[in-house]
Amino acid sequence: MRALFFKCQQLVILDQTKLPNKIVYRKLRNYEAIISAIKHLQIRGAPLIGIAGAYSLVLAAIKNCNRRYLTKVAEQIRSARPTAVNLSWAINRMLAVINNCQIATKDLVKSLISEAKAIEREEESNTFKIGEIGANLIKDNMTVMTICNTGWLATVGIGTALGVIYTAVKQGKRVKVYVLETRPLLQGARLTAFELSKAKIPYTLITDNMMATVMPNVDIVLVGADRIAQNGDVANKIGTLTLAITAHYFKVPFYVVAPTSSLDLNLNNGKEIVIEKRDKNEVIYVGKKLIAPKSADVFNPAFDITPASLISGIVTEKKIFYPPFKLNN
Amino acid sequence: MRALFFKCQQLVILDQTKLPNKIVYRKLRNYEAIISAIKHLQIRGAPLIGIAGAYSLVLAAIKNCNRRYLTKVAEQIRSARPTAVNLSWAINRMLAVINNCQIATKDLVKSLISEAKAIEREEESNTFKIGEIGANLIKDNMTVMTICNTGWLATVGIGTALGVIYTAVKQGKRVKVYVLETRPLLQGARLTAFELSKAKIPYTLITDNMMATVMPNVDIVLVGADRIAQNGDVANKIGTLTLAITAHYFKVPFYVVAPTSSLDLNLNNGKEIVIEKRDKNEVIYVGKKLIAPKSADVFNPAFDITPASLISGIVTEKKIFYPPFKLNN
Repeated sequence: MRALFFKCQQLVILDQTKLPNKIVYRKLRNYEAIISAIKHLQIRGAPLIGIAGAYSLVLAAIKNCNRRYLTKVAEQIRSARPTAVNLSWAINRMLAVINNCQIATKDLVKSLISEAKAIEREEESNTFKIGEIGANLIKDNMTVMTICNTGWLATVGIGTALGVIYTAVKQGKRVKVYVLETRPLLQGARLTAFELSKAKIPYTLITDNMMATVMPNVDIVLVGADRIAQNGDVANKIGTLTLAITAHYFKVPFYVVAPTSSLDLNLNNGKEIVIEKRDKNEVIYVGKKLIAPKSADVFNPAFDITPASLISGIVTEKKIFYPPFKLNN
Repeated sequence: MRALFFKCQQLVILDQTKLPNKIVYRKLRNYEAIISAIKHLQIRGAPLIGIAGAYSLVLAAIKNCNRRYLTKVAEQIRSARPTAVNLSWAINRMLAVINNCQIATKDLVKSLISEAKAIEREEESNTFKIGEIGANLIKDNMTVMTICNTGWLATVGIGTALGVIYTAVKQGKRVKVYVLETRPLLQGARLTAFELSKAKIPYTLITDNMMATVMPNVDIVLVGADRIAQNGDVANKIGTLTLAITAHYFKVPFYVVAPTSSLDLNLNNGKEIVIEKRDKNEVIYVGKKLIAPKSADVFNPAFDITPASLISGIVTEKKIFYPPFKLNN
């Protein structure tokens, strides 16, 4: 299974809003459909939305090769979701092709397909490198806690934090995982539990607020990232900061696992990261079930910022960075 | 509105599993129905299940006044839920009446009704005293964070932690509340948001894992308790420990608010408190919606233990206890 693939001028995606109950693939034929799928979280996971963003420019170029038009479309795609920098990073790589005067207009589609495929291939290969490097942190019989979904559904390849677990298991290490359900959209319960079930890796699902109760039994916490500032501050799924604080209290190592496409070296620190606020209905409805007064005032940030001071290390495809973080090296 | 009342040899309860969408009162005519309502959380909240437990012995005695029978029934009721000590405390008061040889068997029902009403009246009056004492902690314009439901739905009277807020507001102080939704059973989203809406007190609902993100804007955390050991360790709704750790990290005062019927002076510390584990379906279903693989392994403790070291003070109807806690004084 694969979270997305490009074939016959279509981006085929596994609709992640339907998991784990239904396996639904959707064929996206234009960039507007990809933007919509990103906004509605049918495609999600920082590395994956980067790749989907790249392919959306391919689909746009197939219909209209005008460079000014494509530049405009690029900005539209970039703003589909503001926090994960991978989207912006992939769009910038595609824009470099669009703005390359050496490429004739008639060759632009071919060049854009080639760049998007390169991004996909590199990001896929990066997950295996990340897995190898990160698996050094995992010893036999360890218990890992994780939040949200960071496996093959969030990337191409094997994932980031979950990719480390897959690699360790492949190396013969026995690993047990505590999966935080990850409210409000339950990516842990729906997606990570689904992946680990399929992989036959033993896991226990808990609600997010149980993290402190089980933390004394945890050896290491592994999480993904949506944007990492130069000083090591990390934007990731809402709940990550509470998790980092809890790990810190119990002196459990807390590692961030992400490709370097998640680094934003333009930012000095996490305060500069824009946090996406999402609709209140994501909190007060679960499926169609209303779980609070409809009139409730709700705060629904999709991400939070974990300060570098709470992070034991940042695992990338290049190396593990340790504090004090200097991520441009 | 009232969470329960005894009338015409029936215990009438507001079914809390139906809130906030439906207001359903149920008439319970025998002790088995009360046990079932306690187990299924139609009646919940530590002080409230104490009172309901007392009335269940009244209903049993109306049918059969045999003291040995009633003593057996008492133990059945006591074990309906293991963690909240208020149930055991109320049962012990009723047993003292049952075992009092001075009371003729023909007068037993009358005496038991009288004791149950005394418990109810005292617990109701305690909530007002707790509110007055606790409101000294609240200044004008403060922002409070709370978990689960500790208002008039959890007690008779005005509640414990939420009762402090009601009292402060009545004193003319402006208070804003962050309500943690409190997974898995969403007592914060369903019940506390419902109460605050009705009381027109401004609140913002958040998922439990957002606690760290908003904690820098919080002035004080107020929570209830299900059982408090002599050293000040507190059993309360799952999530309380994570909340206490997060408050501690941000140096936000963390107060426990409970009547002395929640104290268990027989226990030296929290390690001796029995934590109720509940069904996995409470986690993997929200209403009828399955939110995880059906085969998922789930850990579902209903409570956790917050160590005294994380607690700024314990507010009771007698006084505020401060660390180092000596709760028998």
